[in-house]
Amino acid sequence: MRLFEATEEGTVEIKIDEDIRARQEELAERNRELFRERGIRAFDIAGSVGAGKTSLIAGMVERLSDKHGVGVIAGDVATTRDAEQVTGKGARKVLQINTGGMCRLDARLVCRALEQMPESGIDVLFIENVGNLICPSYFSLGVEARVVVVSASEGTHVIEKHPAMFESADLVALNKIDIAEAVQVDLSQPVADLAAMRPGLKVVKTNCLTGDGIDEVLGALRLG
Amino acid sequence: MRLFEATEEGTVEIKIDEDIRARQEELAERNRELFRERGIRAFDIAGSVGAGKTSLIAGMVERLSDKHGVGVIAGDVATTRDAEQVTGKGARKVLQINTGGMCRLDARLVCRALEQMPESGIDVLFIENVGNLICPSYFSLGVEARVVVVSASEGTHVIEKHPAMFESADLVALNKIDIAEAVQVDLSQPVADLAAMRPGLKVVKTNCLTGDGIDEVLGALRLG
Repeated sequence: MRLFEATEEGTVEIKIDEDIRARQEELAERNRELFRERGIRAFDIAGSVGAGKTSLIAGMVERLSDKHGVGVIAGDVATTRDAEQVTGKGARKVLQINTGGMCRLDARLVCRALEQMPESGIDVLFIENVGNLICPSYFSLGVEARVVVVSASEGTHVIEKHPAMFESADLVALNKIDIAEAVQVDLSQPVADLAAMRPGLKVVKTNCLTGDGIDEVLGALRLG
Repeated sequence: MRLFEATEEGTVEIKIDEDIRARQEELAERNRELFRERGIRAFDIAGSVGAGKTSLIAGMVERLSDKHGVGVIAGDVATTRDAEQVTGKGARKVLQINTGGMCRLDARLVCRALEQMPESGIDVLFIENVGNLICPSYFSLGVEARVVVVSASEGTHVIEKHPAMFESADLVALNKIDIAEAVQVDLSQPVADLAAMRPGLKVVKTNCLTGDGIDEVLGALRLG
């Protein structure tokens, strides 16, 4: 992560930053070990407000819950709406983290939520990050992979405007493809931008409301 | 603003925060004075990625530029796309701030951009905040009013999930109303949530691509 401070003398980057980064990485590593010990495959589902993170998670839980013990940790500034939307889809446990004013999850918040997860019976964990294409980029949660969900509504140039987030992605779900024409967005641009920025990165076009593409996301994550 | 720090002992609010808040308020007050001196009416246009901030600004500039000297400051993490989209609509000056990793504008960044504005000939200034429904809530820029743009694509419960942002709004533009049905969002819910949270707050339904509602936004801001 990079940390900035706005002062009367200008906005400066705080260089002691390395300590915080090291501490965050240490906490992420602890989560990673915990996941390994418990046999949990964990995934960070990040993206902006309304990208379709919760719908994607709900769709994945529905498809996996007959064969897997699935857990969900949903992060948001306020409310338990995301957790409620996933409930009833077959997950073993659904927890909600409210961050108050904070614009992203971090390894420590996930670690605290993990204490509330059953110690056994969960082998797949989806962590829904706070809806934001900036802040979560800089924080590793200790997961196997980060899926970034981006909706067609976010505009033609959404990829190049948010380099840090897409640099941190292991898979991109390009969602709400059905409304691209209505919002006058040419989806070939984000696809080309991702290919230029991250050659070889898996990009799946989805419509998480109808379920289109969700099986392909699961396949790419080797879940099924 | 509220500032949090995630440490090994947990996520804690940093209480020396009051100093930063006071300093930010002081800088916002300086901007306010500068606007007053120069006869500039300034507006902060905030909202998430793809909400339609730039399209709203472009539409307002087009409608105002024959009678007003309009300036635009566009803030984003990276790229000059927003400034480019507004260029050619008749603004006297269009500047772009790139924040690097920072998730919002603040009074100091705006103050520095103002130094690059012509000292006369601008009487209306639109400041496009960074695309984010969380971080900008806590930073005052010293403007006359904050317009929060929220698109139908951001979901049924977007208002209650982002209380700080909507508490800070002076007007809400509920945009992309044409796609509400396609994304299965019932717009009566955000309207009801705003009425409950902020009785009397002006809410305008817009489609910034066709221009629907932009005149009503201008009327509510007493611009024309």
